[in-house]
Amino acid sequence: MEGVAIIGAGQTRYGDFPEKGLKELFAEAYFEMLASVDRGFDPQLIQAAYIGCLSAGSGFQLGQLAPLLMGHVGLPHVYAVRVENACASGGYALYNAACAIASGKFNFVLAAGVEKMRDVSSTKGRYWLGISGDTEYERLAGLTFAGIYALMATRYMHEYGLKREHLAMVAVKNHRHAVANPKAQFRQEITLERALSGPPVAYPFTVWDCSPTSDGAAVVLLCNAKLAKSFTDRPVYLAGFGAASDYLAVHDRHTITSLHATRKAAAEAYKQAGIGPGDIDFAEVHDCFTIAEIMAYSDLGFCEEGQAHRLLEEGVTQLGGRRPVNVSGGLKAKGHPIGATGCGMAYEIFRQLRGEAREPSRQIPNARFALSHNVGGSGGTAAVFIYRRGD
Amino acid sequence: MEGVAIIGAGQTRYGDFPEKGLKELFAEAYFEMLASVDRGFDPQLIQAAYIGCLSAGSGFQLGQLAPLLMGHVGLPHVYAVRVENACASGGYALYNAACAIASGKFNFVLAAGVEKMRDVSSTKGRYWLGISGDTEYERLAGLTFAGIYALMATRYMHEYGLKREHLAMVAVKNHRHAVANPKAQFRQEITLERALSGPPVAYPFTVWDCSPTSDGAAVVLLCNAKLAKSFTDRPVYLAGFGAASDYLAVHDRHTITSLHATRKAAAEAYKQAGIGPGDIDFAEVHDCFTIAEIMAYSDLGFCEEGQAHRLLEEGVTQLGGRRPVNVSGGLKAKGHPIGATGCGMAYEIFRQLRGEAREPSRQIPNARFALSHNVGGSGGTAAVFIYRRGD
Repeated sequence: MEGVAIIGAGQTRYGDFPEKGLKELFAEAYFEMLASVDRGFDPQLIQAAYIGCLSAGSGFQLGQLAPLLMGHVGLPHVYAVRVENACASGGYALYNAACAIASGKFNFVLAAGVEKMRDVSSTKGRYWLGISGDTEYERLAGLTFAGIYALMATRYMHEYGLKREHLAMVAVKNHRHAVANPKAQFRQEITLERALSGPPVAYPFTVWDCSPTSDGAAVVLLCNAKLAKSFTDRPVYLAGFGAASDYLAVHDRHTITSLHATRKAAAEAYKQAGIGPGDIDFAEVHDCFTIAEIMAYSDLGFCEEGQAHRLLEEGVTQLGGRRPVNVSGGLKAKGHPIGATGCGMAYEIFRQLRGEAREPSRQIPNARFALSHNVGGSGGTAAVFIYRRGD
Repeated sequence: MEGVAIIGAGQTRYGDFPEKGLKELFAEAYFEMLASVDRGFDPQLIQAAYIGCLSAGSGFQLGQLAPLLMGHVGLPHVYAVRVENACASGGYALYNAACAIASGKFNFVLAAGVEKMRDVSSTKGRYWLGISGDTEYERLAGLTFAGIYALMATRYMHEYGLKREHLAMVAVKNHRHAVANPKAQFRQEITLERALSGPPVAYPFTVWDCSPTSDGAAVVLLCNAKLAKSFTDRPVYLAGFGAASDYLAVHDRHTITSLHATRKAAAEAYKQAGIGPGDIDFAEVHDCFTIAEIMAYSDLGFCEEGQAHRLLEEGVTQLGGRRPVNVSGGLKAKGHPIGATGCGMAYEIFRQLRGEAREPSRQIPNARFALSHNVGGSGGTAAVFIYRRGD
């Protein structure tokens, strides 16, 4: 099994860009990625591309999105394929790109994701999100996506004494993190009071507990680890990657205060990397709703189940804390262009581990290991990656 | 790079099954696959699943189809992902499953495809097909999928003297092949006269030049080649696999009498297998329209470009000929449930190479190497596989 390195990464700002289509968003992230390779990179070396996107086949009525986008950036003949696992589509693109390098079949592979959610009718936006759950048992019965996570939150509150304030603390933290991130959609702080008193969505969630709809793209360039030092003195290695699934319908699961797919994916990634949760210096986790970040803390092994709120109370996961989580702003404030999210996490980690967070206030010092965590739907799928700074 | 073997395969009959949904079709093919493993197989060994489907995200409004289907057959936690490249979605599922085995990360991986095209409104059926071309430059301008291939056919006729009769000969041959195939959608012979005088679709095509819409599923079980003999004395090895892309819009291509994606994918597959076109004993090729099979002959190296009609005139590609093509009946008569097609080809080849065609009249004797060829849209993508009989 060949080693996998990241030698370049690019990302659009996430937000509302009515003037840009899928092609334009992809190209913007692609060219930033190319420019980021320290000693330059001839794009003709790229042999394969895995592109995550949920809406291409539905809202945008595009088949074969992957070769379409690659043709748009001047690489029409490269092997390219779209992968889809709802909100984890970008993470699965990254996972499959890593497998392609690991197989030895390819030396240079793109992992990318792109989504447009903003300048479409609201019906379509809701439609895409809805299809990420179980259509027969959840969506057609009227259960929304926010509703599913709200069920998880209320159960968590019931079992572990979590307060609504803890949910709001996630939103406040991630909004504060996003202020210094030029790529984030919402760069404004919110107070705990505001987070608690926002318009209700599904109890216990206000609008501030929910990630936004976003346009955006992210592109990551992977190469065989043996070749990385030809292109940069500062590669980032993918030390471990895991992915796993679960029943889509939450009624089929043993618990709804933990995502089994996350636990299984994380176990696989930790095992491959040969490290444990205690070695992770910082993480980007899937906070589509505030409860999702809280569940991720225990599912990733950062604390025992039911103890997540203590990490928030003690400031462990804020910038400057012992293990910052979502310093990018997370899905909550950086934004959540579905297919792009998993690769956008890798972009943030690539820059952080290389000391390139740009704004000194948001640079995590001396980090060696980082983790990213991307969830599909309400936990039907999850992909976890462990990154190691190249020395 | 680890070797890849096929140790089991299953396929539904292709056709019109209003009583079966995507889950039922997938399960039927899955359980036939399980039963096909000579010494039995514990499904808990399966570590990953790649599932091709085009319509899940559009007509059927299902995200995360892959874990949904795996949960339905009792494997909810297995890593599973949907891949989409229009009509080549099944081929790309097989390709990625092969990469996953080759990487050494997994020992047992499913490749599968599934599609329902029949019991939906005709508007939706056309819509899926249309999205496989270039939406901005072709579909929105009114160019249908049959229309694109009709352009290719008329150009081929103009450049190489191909006659309408040659197109019809492909249909007649493949319908004849399908008669003995219990898994085929159309098991009736047609005459050359009937093929020529069918209702016109897009000149020079009659309805008999066009593959049908179909429901169906196919599932293939891959394993690390080193482990294959534990499960069967007769594995089939994936000796080579290649995939490549092209501009979706045909106006961007240098030629429309050849598919560059096929040529590039085939070159990669032949190189990996260490053999050439002359070594292939039989093939399953992508005959979505009759001209597509004719172009495939030269793109796969079975003849020079423009000479394909001679293979038909000389009977080279019919059952009993020197190199039979589409003995299953092909997309034309076996059927074309989009996402399933690429894996259904592997099913046919797996059975043929093991001497299990069942009907003696359709068994190809003494075959050692076979090839399958799966095209996305009008050649935006292609995947080619070379299979070797285990000795």
